[in-house]
Amino acid sequence: MADELTDLEAPARHLGRLRGRMAEKGLTAFLARDTSNIQWLTAFDRVFDEEAAHALFVDQGRAVLHTDSRYSEACRRAAEGTGIAVNDVREGHGAFAAKLWSHRFMAEAADKLGIEDSIELCEYRALEKAFGEGEAPLPLRETDGVVAGLRAVKDPYEIARMRRAQTITDAAFAHIAEFMAPGMTERQVQLELENFMVTRGADGLAFPSIVATGANGASPHAIPGETVLEAGQCVVLDFGARFAGYCSDMTRTVFLGMPEGEMAAAWEALRAANEAVEAMLAPGVTGAEAHQLAEDVLEGHGFGGKMGHGLGHGVGLDIHEQPVLSPRNPQPLAAGNVVTVEPGIYLPGRFGMRLEDFGVVTETGFDVFTASTHEMVVI
Amino acid sequence: MADELTDLEAPARHLGRLRGRMAEKGLTAFLARDTSNIQWLTAFDRVFDEEAAHALFVDQGRAVLHTDSRYSEACRRAAEGTGIAVNDVREGHGAFAAKLWSHRFMAEAADKLGIEDSIELCEYRALEKAFGEGEAPLPLRETDGVVAGLRAVKDPYEIARMRRAQTITDAAFAHIAEFMAPGMTERQVQLELENFMVTRGADGLAFPSIVATGANGASPHAIPGETVLEAGQCVVLDFGARFAGYCSDMTRTVFLGMPEGEMAAAWEALRAANEAVEAMLAPGVTGAEAHQLAEDVLEGHGFGGKMGHGLGHGVGLDIHEQPVLSPRNPQPLAAGNVVTVEPGIYLPGRFGMRLEDFGVVTETGFDVFTASTHEMVVI
Repeated sequence: MADELTDLEAPARHLGRLRGRMAEKGLTAFLARDTSNIQWLTAFDRVFDEEAAHALFVDQGRAVLHTDSRYSEACRRAAEGTGIAVNDVREGHGAFAAKLWSHRFMAEAADKLGIEDSIELCEYRALEKAFGEGEAPLPLRETDGVVAGLRAVKDPYEIARMRRAQTITDAAFAHIAEFMAPGMTERQVQLELENFMVTRGADGLAFPSIVATGANGASPHAIPGETVLEAGQCVVLDFGARFAGYCSDMTRTVFLGMPEGEMAAAWEALRAANEAVEAMLAPGVTGAEAHQLAEDVLEGHGFGGKMGHGLGHGVGLDIHEQPVLSPRNPQPLAAGNVVTVEPGIYLPGRFGMRLEDFGVVTETGFDVFTASTHEMVVI
Repeated sequence: MADELTDLEAPARHLGRLRGRMAEKGLTAFLARDTSNIQWLTAFDRVFDEEAAHALFVDQGRAVLHTDSRYSEACRRAAEGTGIAVNDVREGHGAFAAKLWSHRFMAEAADKLGIEDSIELCEYRALEKAFGEGEAPLPLRETDGVVAGLRAVKDPYEIARMRRAQTITDAAFAHIAEFMAPGMTERQVQLELENFMVTRGADGLAFPSIVATGANGASPHAIPGETVLEAGQCVVLDFGARFAGYCSDMTRTVFLGMPEGEMAAAWEALRAANEAVEAMLAPGVTGAEAHQLAEDVLEGHGFGGKMGHGLGHGVGLDIHEQPVLSPRNPQPLAAGNVVTVEPGIYLPGRFGMRLEDFGVVTETGFDVFTASTHEMVVI
């Protein structure tokens, strides 16, 4: 790939951003264990899978990937020209990091190794042991979301990959709206949707798709099953593709026959909430403000307190990233944040619906990647 | 499902096994956070997805699942008749557990709450905070693999589910051996294989499938790509289905034309290693002994030191469970352990191959679930 999707400078730029943040925080070195963080820092394509088998040690001069023999061939090929060293010596990541640390004679009391507070507790105990041999206090400093915070502001090449993922997802929605009919099961619809995405250019799925009809739609994380689509109901479709490692995420609700009454009103409320938020998103708006606007619009339409989840979340290499649009996020958004906007209304025992786009916060507003219509889709 | 695949007693039995272990270890209560552990303890079908959104608090009298509003409807339905309480109050799992703890007036110094050492470090800090309000020492006791150890010995209904998963996987292999031909890409073969499994009764995939040809086969965790299958090469296919939550796992190596010389000899070595181990597995044999036998057989065939990974691993709700067949496991196997046997030979830059079955350790030996042939498959 030699186009906007490729960026040979990504490893140097991402490691440079981490080193800048390390300097601000007084960290001599940093140990990344989260595979998505390592994926982002190295920008190795098509090397890492779901296993948390790797660690990346970074200081101002070095970046050393510790992996195992199952991955070392692929990692060495991907590392060519990046300056990242690859080592598959058979030992724990903690012991490996401690050796790199001591080889630099980092014995000053002020020297600190940043570690992620998302590591497993047993791994932390192994680090304590590996670094606790001497008399000095432990040099470990627990950090919260250092790399996740950097990842929240996307590069143009990352945005290009997510746009491509969304193009596949939009095409899948157009296809499935033609395909779906009363009498099919949720599972049949799911399989068709997923097969479309993976045979039309997706590397894989961003997450297991949700296809939920009738009362199942009132569970935001319903698992598709043998429930049959019936006329008069609506169907929530929440799905996404993965392209070159990056995710897309969209939800549409499809109606099996023209809805009336509360069901029609709920769609209008969702649409109004979605569009009000997409019109207000811009740098400086906080995640909590965006969430509250959606709650207010829903309440104005008579559907207050029926959402139950946050309005949106960041998307990137992971399907759930920073920043979130929720009461828990009082921080202002920044240009380059890629987020979902997904108001929902859930009426237990009856129906549920959700309308989700995703896009990027720009200097002046919000650029939506999702091209599928907000008009009611009736089949 | 009202057959061997269903076991309405599973929640009571699994919780009972945990309570027995808690009593042995002096634990007043236990907090499970690992989703697969919670899945196993509750035996709720079709409720949990990939998100680590739940916690299960268990003491001798209670089992309380703390979840969030996205899952509470489905959890409440699944919990009916099990005696498991479901609570979706919006607070951290640590704070929630601390309240359950204090409501029982568990103030004796000897009272201990077992926690999993696989929890995230930040979650451990939250637990310290939630439980550290008083003067008393923290009641938290870090445990390593308590539930994983229980899960390592399977119930008949779990074995029935894995056999069903393997039936689908064997059918997929028969199909793909007919389908594959030189000129196709690894990715095309992967898509056909995965679509076969999910449309023939699998809930989903046990893990992302590996299809690796030529030199790619020498990377045990290769990601299928645009490499084209060519005559004279071999292709490693490593894949599995998920049925009612439980995984299958198999690997076969297919030859594009009759192999000669070293490639043919490597297959014979793998087959001999696989069959020697399957003939010796029984209660009392250690994981390390099984691994060593495979290494010895491979070495006897002139392929010593070419495997690089452990011989096998447990399989269940997760694709990698206890016990492992590797030098790291000096423990004897027990009847009910379900493990893979997967010797491999990897010659970097040239080719790789692997032959993997899985089955259950019985009172008298090893019952292989995999029905596909060990004969060379040449297309």
